[in-house]
Amino acid sequence: MYRPQIKVCDCTIRDGGLMNNSRFTLDEVKNVYRALNDAGVDIIELGYRNSKSFFSPKDYGEWRFCDEEMLKKATDGIPKRAKLAVMQDAHKACAEDVFPKSESLVDIIRVATYVKDVDKAIKLANNATEKGYEATINIMAISHVLERELDEALQQIEQETKIVACYIVDSFGALYSEDIDYMVHKFQRYLRTKEVGIHCHNQMQLGFANTIEAIIKNVNYLDGTLYGLGRAAGNCPLELLLGFLKNPKFDIRPVLEVIESTILPMRLKMEWGYNIPYMLAGMLNMHPDNSMNLIAQSKLKEGSPSFVKFYESMLADENA
Amino acid sequence: MYRPQIKVCDCTIRDGGLMNNSRFTLDEVKNVYRALNDAGVDIIELGYRNSKSFFSPKDYGEWRFCDEEMLKKATDGIPKRAKLAVMQDAHKACAEDVFPKSESLVDIIRVATYVKDVDKAIKLANNATEKGYEATINIMAISHVLERELDEALQQIEQETKIVACYIVDSFGALYSEDIDYMVHKFQRYLRTKEVGIHCHNQMQLGFANTIEAIIKNVNYLDGTLYGLGRAAGNCPLELLLGFLKNPKFDIRPVLEVIESTILPMRLKMEWGYNIPYMLAGMLNMHPDNSMNLIAQSKLKEGSPSFVKFYESMLADENA
Repeated sequence: MYRPQIKVCDCTIRDGGLMNNSRFTLDEVKNVYRALNDAGVDIIELGYRNSKSFFSPKDYGEWRFCDEEMLKKATDGIPKRAKLAVMQDAHKACAEDVFPKSESLVDIIRVATYVKDVDKAIKLANNATEKGYEATINIMAISHVLERELDEALQQIEQETKIVACYIVDSFGALYSEDIDYMVHKFQRYLRTKEVGIHCHNQMQLGFANTIEAIIKNVNYLDGTLYGLGRAAGNCPLELLLGFLKNPKFDIRPVLEVIESTILPMRLKMEWGYNIPYMLAGMLNMHPDNSMNLIAQSKLKEGSPSFVKFYESMLADENA
Repeated sequence: MYRPQIKVCDCTIRDGGLMNNSRFTLDEVKNVYRALNDAGVDIIELGYRNSKSFFSPKDYGEWRFCDEEMLKKATDGIPKRAKLAVMQDAHKACAEDVFPKSESLVDIIRVATYVKDVDKAIKLANNATEKGYEATINIMAISHVLERELDEALQQIEQETKIVACYIVDSFGALYSEDIDYMVHKFQRYLRTKEVGIHCHNQMQLGFANTIEAIIKNVNYLDGTLYGLGRAAGNCPLELLLGFLKNPKFDIRPVLEVIESTILPMRLKMEWGYNIPYMLAGMLNMHPDNSMNLIAQSKLKEGSPSFVKFYESMLADENA
């Protein structure tokens, strides 16, 4: 039995871009885009549509901006079954970078925001819907929000936007299933006319489990990535998600193929997935940046990172 | 808030022994034993007490047999806080290999069994309790049982033994949280006078999540291993479990240290943890042996295992 309302969004290139400054080759992006279309995934997010005044094109790859020309190159000649999405960061993107839908290959603008920037997010989301796109708002770092602010933000989103879905984003991979329940219930209570979405990180190996928990609680917009590629310990693995969902339109074979041909080789350049520094960050509900630095440094030195020392330093930070 | 009834059992050396024929060095076992005692874990399982007529000591390391002499070497000079456990396989162990408790360093005999061998398991468990040990029965491959047989087995275990706990063992990592709920409820219904235990595998990255699910449903005997070391994709990682449980007696630092000093270096010789061949076995509710062979072979050839070809072969096996 499956729920036809469920929309699976793959964010491999977008969230994975946080591990390599969005420097994927055109071939990598084409392979991923082709495979996901073949697999029957509903939405494919190919990167950010962020502003070049916030991110220098010298330091970031094309998929931080997703110019229409690049999207054309990435999708050309590939039969399109999925909707194409890009993400705008509420505090690092411009309304003017989004053209009228008739001039764009994009179908969905997903606006990522911290709760404090919700007014910026609403502006960008409304800009997108007015120009003919579907829009979503994705509330990041949900494990760090002040609840009063979140309640107010959700109320605003419900009243002031026409988004299709509002996502719970567990950026720090810090939530347990009970927390997912709590958040989903809250989102559903405020967002009477919108769908709720879920985007999980895997710092505590709970990305997939928490996505299932959300599905059980009637969340219909689900994010995953190929082999979990994404920031730090990565995301809910798409291959597991498709295995769990019973919709016969999904075919896992193209997913297995592209993981083998395109994603696994990336492990030589990027280290995502479960490890102790990420686990500690998730357990302590902290941003994984320090863990990522520790891993990068210990790679350079080829020495041991001393997990206990790192743990003590995190506890000190927490108490500061 | 924590539940004082909860007993955490570490099975690193025992379940990890399925990846290296129980060939751990004495130093490795000593390091693990010391760290787990320091961490406040309740039970430490140092291996199997299986019969040398079933396992040749030429092919298997000492921790497949856990002779008292070896246990003495492994534990000597280390302050003991935890109970010491060994496992007997119902179909590969002898009652005579268990001496009276007064002559042994062991506190708990855990009997692993398939449902079909439950009469053998009961005999071994009763042998252990009669000789002065605590005993448990761990029902393996729970995702492959015929329910009528399981019901009968649980009824027998309740009536015919004095075990302290009966474990649900998801050997194939094939259960979702709903399945855990279902099994826990069944075990609790039959086992009115025993505790229920949970032992999960991580083929679908659900080892930790399913253990939490069991905790929520009042399961009190919990298995984990250091960094998840165990057969195939491994087990519920002990470090995550201790992070989740709030009992102040646990200290995660010795766990972090021994993972760094002793467990991570083993990755050069053993490949446990999430990967696509294990994931497919979990998803299809199959024994991970074929996946382990595939991984070993593709390592030898240094070639690509072709995930899709493997998937198709598993589907063919399933339909056979």
